[in-house]
Amino acid sequence: MPRIIFLPAQVEIEAQPEETIIRAAMRAGVHINASCGGAGVCGKCRVFVESGEVEGESLPEGGYKACVTIPRTDVTVRVPVESQMDRRALERPMKKTAVSWIKEGQALKWQLDPVVYQYHLVLPEPTLADNASDLSRLLRELVKIGQKEDIDVDTGVLKNLPYALRKEGFKCSVSLFQPDPEGRSLLFGVQPGAPPKEILAVAIDIGTTTVCGELLDLASGKVLASLSDYNPQVSYGEDIISRIEFARREGGLRLLHQRIIECIARLIREMTQKVGKDPSEVLLISLAGNTTMSHFFLELEPRWLREAPYVPVATIIPPVRAREVDLPVAEGARMILAPSVASYVGGDIVSGVVASGMYREEPLTLFIDIGTNGEIVVGNRDWLACAACSAGPAFEGGGIKHGMRATTGAIEAVHIDPVSLEPMVLTIGGRRPKGICGSGIIALLANLFTEGIIDRQGKFNRGLSHPRVREGRDGWEYVLVWAQESATGEDIVFTEADIDNLIRAKGAMYAGYLTLLESVGLSIEMVERVLLAGNFGSYLDLEQAITIGLLPDLPRDRFFFIGNSSLLGARFAAFSKEVAADMKRVAQMMTNFELSENPSFMDHYVSSLFLPHTDLNLFPSVKERLEAAA
Amino acid sequence: MPRIIFLPAQVEIEAQPEETIIRAAMRAGVHINASCGGAGVCGKCRVFVESGEVEGESLPEGGYKACVTIPRTDVTVRVPVESQMDRRALERPMKKTAVSWIKEGQALKWQLDPVVYQYHLVLPEPTLADNASDLSRLLRELVKIGQKEDIDVDTGVLKNLPYALRKEGFKCSVSLFQPDPEGRSLLFGVQPGAPPKEILAVAIDIGTTTVCGELLDLASGKVLASLSDYNPQVSYGEDIISRIEFARREGGLRLLHQRIIECIARLIREMTQKVGKDPSEVLLISLAGNTTMSHFFLELEPRWLREAPYVPVATIIPPVRAREVDLPVAEGARMILAPSVASYVGGDIVSGVVASGMYREEPLTLFIDIGTNGEIVVGNRDWLACAACSAGPAFEGGGIKHGMRATTGAIEAVHIDPVSLEPMVLTIGGRRPKGICGSGIIALLANLFTEGIIDRQGKFNRGLSHPRVREGRDGWEYVLVWAQESATGEDIVFTEADIDNLIRAKGAMYAGYLTLLESVGLSIEMVERVLLAGNFGSYLDLEQAITIGLLPDLPRDRFFFIGNSSLLGARFAAFSKEVAADMKRVAQMMTNFELSENPSFMDHYVSSLFLPHTDLNLFPSVKERLEAAA
Repeated sequence: MPRIIFLPAQVEIEAQPEETIIRAAMRAGVHINASCGGAGVCGKCRVFVESGEVEGESLPEGGYKACVTIPRTDVTVRVPVESQMDRRALERPMKKTAVSWIKEGQALKWQLDPVVYQYHLVLPEPTLADNASDLSRLLRELVKIGQKEDIDVDTGVLKNLPYALRKEGFKCSVSLFQPDPEGRSLLFGVQPGAPPKEILAVAIDIGTTTVCGELLDLASGKVLASLSDYNPQVSYGEDIISRIEFARREGGLRLLHQRIIECIARLIREMTQKVGKDPSEVLLISLAGNTTMSHFFLELEPRWLREAPYVPVATIIPPVRAREVDLPVAEGARMILAPSVASYVGGDIVSGVVASGMYREEPLTLFIDIGTNGEIVVGNRDWLACAACSAGPAFEGGGIKHGMRATTGAIEAVHIDPVSLEPMVLTIGGRRPKGICGSGIIALLANLFTEGIIDRQGKFNRGLSHPRVREGRDGWEYVLVWAQESATGEDIVFTEADIDNLIRAKGAMYAGYLTLLESVGLSIEMVERVLLAGNFGSYLDLEQAITIGLLPDLPRDRFFFIGNSSLLGARFAAFSKEVAADMKRVAQMMTNFELSENPSFMDHYVSSLFLPHTDLNLFPSVKERLEAAA
Repeated sequence: MPRIIFLPAQVEIEAQPEETIIRAAMRAGVHINASCGGAGVCGKCRVFVESGEVEGESLPEGGYKACVTIPRTDVTVRVPVESQMDRRALERPMKKTAVSWIKEGQALKWQLDPVVYQYHLVLPEPTLADNASDLSRLLRELVKIGQKEDIDVDTGVLKNLPYALRKEGFKCSVSLFQPDPEGRSLLFGVQPGAPPKEILAVAIDIGTTTVCGELLDLASGKVLASLSDYNPQVSYGEDIISRIEFARREGGLRLLHQRIIECIARLIREMTQKVGKDPSEVLLISLAGNTTMSHFFLELEPRWLREAPYVPVATIIPPVRAREVDLPVAEGARMILAPSVASYVGGDIVSGVVASGMYREEPLTLFIDIGTNGEIVVGNRDWLACAACSAGPAFEGGGIKHGMRATTGAIEAVHIDPVSLEPMVLTIGGRRPKGICGSGIIALLANLFTEGIIDRQGKFNRGLSHPRVREGRDGWEYVLVWAQESATGEDIVFTEADIDNLIRAKGAMYAGYLTLLESVGLSIEMVERVLLAGNFGSYLDLEQAITIGLLPDLPRDRFFFIGNSSLLGARFAAFSKEVAADMKRVAQMMTNFELSENPSFMDHYVSSLFLPHTDLNLFPSVKERLEAAA
């Protein structure tokens, strides 16, 4: 990848594939004006290319628009004063980004021993002296190659069996499903001739907002394709609670169930199409999702998930035939579903914990998945404790005046110039800004706080005279994007009420860490590793998250992003029956603590309703920075 | 029951419930003229009641029609000369009827430990401190009452589970299926409140001609109702081979499958209705049938059953959900199917062998099921050998000019007066004769032979001058019923060709016994018990069957009728998981011998094409009788 040197700051960074100069600058901590989100319309982000080649849009007055220009060789780029606004931005330390867990090779180690195997059998042809039934003949041969005698047989196999055997002179390939190395195998498919080279499986993460799929080859342990889509249930309720409400209507549950099935079926169709295969060749589906999503997926009544004492119908789901929920895969193909622990600690978390491998290792690890419901797991190979925090939807843009989901046009990154207090905003897809999504919201809050625009209680500095800080209809606010630069034609603002919501949300998370650790007799400094799971985690700026008190102020090298670990766990479970079996073991290991039941949770919560916290000593690096700035 | 003394023979017999005097006379070996089959129209069966009370039809010239008259008290009946024709009939020894195995209490001993259990569970209500999932809560309680931790769960249970638990305050009844005491249990049903007193199950014997059902109460080990019906597949082919042919037509297999399912569904509906229950309360179906019937039942391709080397699709069928074949029983209810051994030794035989208990006992036992395909099993608790003989359909009336199935109007019993050579015929239902069914055919053949009307080769005595013995259109024949007394308005005759068919059929059976015994190094005299299975067996006259050489000439007290042992085994399997597991064990114990492969079979067969056999020394009692008569 080409490297970019930004002048005058002399900051160097390696560009990511197809990354624009402005995005590289944001990563490098170089402030470049950008008020149109990277839509290429405001022209404020001019840079001069001093050496190397770029591809992009040059401006008539010279230079390039950084927001639409991509380096093609190593380049040196000069940020002119008017784009730079203030060089103090360059003096800030580079944001330390947590290392990706997966890239470090630190995720769970597994050996390829997939849940579905195919064998090529050459059976002796029947004679009068040996006229055992087709099935006995086949099972006999399986025993010869080392299968246990006592395997289960899907009766669905039988209808096609005599044809399958006779089509190629009793040479056939059989499909066996075994989700536990200690458990029984199930014969669920027989086809004439040799098996195909690839054994197709699908891993699916059913998120409340997004459904992510991977097409796997179980023979090679490779991912052949991947695809995501929005969860179509969003139309019936943005969050889990409103969908559970919707499910109570006549036919509501059925509708939610059908929609998620259709969505998964579509992902399977499109992924197989991508690689020239057919869904009917898919022999296994490995799924993970939170408890509510699992309930919808199986059409189980979700009503009691949200009413105290929050009882799921089932947490550990036995393997189900995919055709039972009308998924268009191979006849007889089974689905394995990551087990849940409780109503609000679901299979996505269990799958993530398994994918991380933390349940097999020594170090005390804190696993965090931030979303509408933040889930926390702490422990190591000896024990695991977990809890859910009702963080509320603020991190997903919910309850935030101009909050929105992380889609095209959402402001995902913000930097405020310390001197001018002018913002640099980047949107997803580089379009004109429509609103702010989670990572943008956290960045904005952290910047407002760092630059002294708001105080530790989240109140605007009334003494500040700046056109962007004003008393609006809904109280005090910061104007992030002026109407003429927004996609909506309205000012995009961030209000004190928004800030209050965010402080409550991050307070709930932080109180959750402390309470859970306390429940097992530990404190936050003892945590040796912090794993940040989920899509949200992937876009999170670690420093900013610590600055606002959403993440604990621990040495930065203890933090790791693990991405969509729920999907990863589903993938690993397909590739390894040992991992598939571990899912259940881990779910059973995880002791769930109901935080609402714990009186000290409320104390911790109240103490957390400051930036970053009432007790600044819990945030030594933030304290130091604040003191340095003062 | 009233006793009847027949004069002048002074033969006494106890009447059976609602038995007519003529039927009692047939059993007692007293010849009374009867040419209308007992329809009460010929008036030839006049008897005089000398003491006691009867209910029936008196004749204008005095006396009663024996065919429609029933004793109400002990009676003394005089058979007048014209009805009796010849008193030599009275001098014949009484037929020794084989004792019913079941009535002797000799069948398999089993302890009530049914394949389906219901438990009443009172679960602790969930609290925040104990908010395990509904399923975990339930399984936890099952472990407390002694179930293994690792049970299977039918995911179908989950949809209804939360309602079932909450309807009566977490008091519920659960249904567990366990077809093997060493195997895993399956939770397949949860209902609110206490379980009903009765646990309903159905046992079904799928015969080629008849389907027999029993409604069972697994809680008490009792049979609540029973019902039979013709197998509706008969419309598509009388015998197995023609049905397998029919199955090859487009949609043929599906049609045969659907018809048998409909028939079983109807039996289940009617039986449950009889006792005021609903089919949806039936929690288990236990079935037995021959290999072809099992294939049709499961819609498995039967084609290779009839083509050498005669390979079934499967012999051991894992439990199947009843709803998979659209049987209208409880959601989740499973079916167990008696395993087959080979294409022509089916689950009906395995079930019969299990029901008989012979596989658990010491004595060398010969198990015989005579039908289109005679099946033979020999062995004891240490080993079992089996074979099928293609006896052909003669014993079921097939290939016999006036042969018919055992339905109303079929001549089921025949006696020929030794002097007059006039027949006494009884029909099923006491109607005018339409034809002759199996037991009638054997009786007729035995009588013709015993009275010297035919010789040992089955040829009519050409020198005999009798109006009933004549050369007809189809060669020599005996007129059993004159046209004016038959239901068809035609003479009912029995031809030399019929006799030839019968000799071939019985020859195949007898050659089968000898060949199978020889294959295991044994001879016929070593057989300590002979079990006669099947409906046909129940109506068979032992002496007559031995006389024609269909059964071996062993001491009569070694013979036992065991009735529909296939149905009996299916019933026992429902009542006892040990028996259910034994089914598989017995099927695996049974070594199948392909008689057509054995060169000595043909020798034995050819030697058996005499009445009773070429070697009269094999039939000492018949030899003695023939010599006495000569």
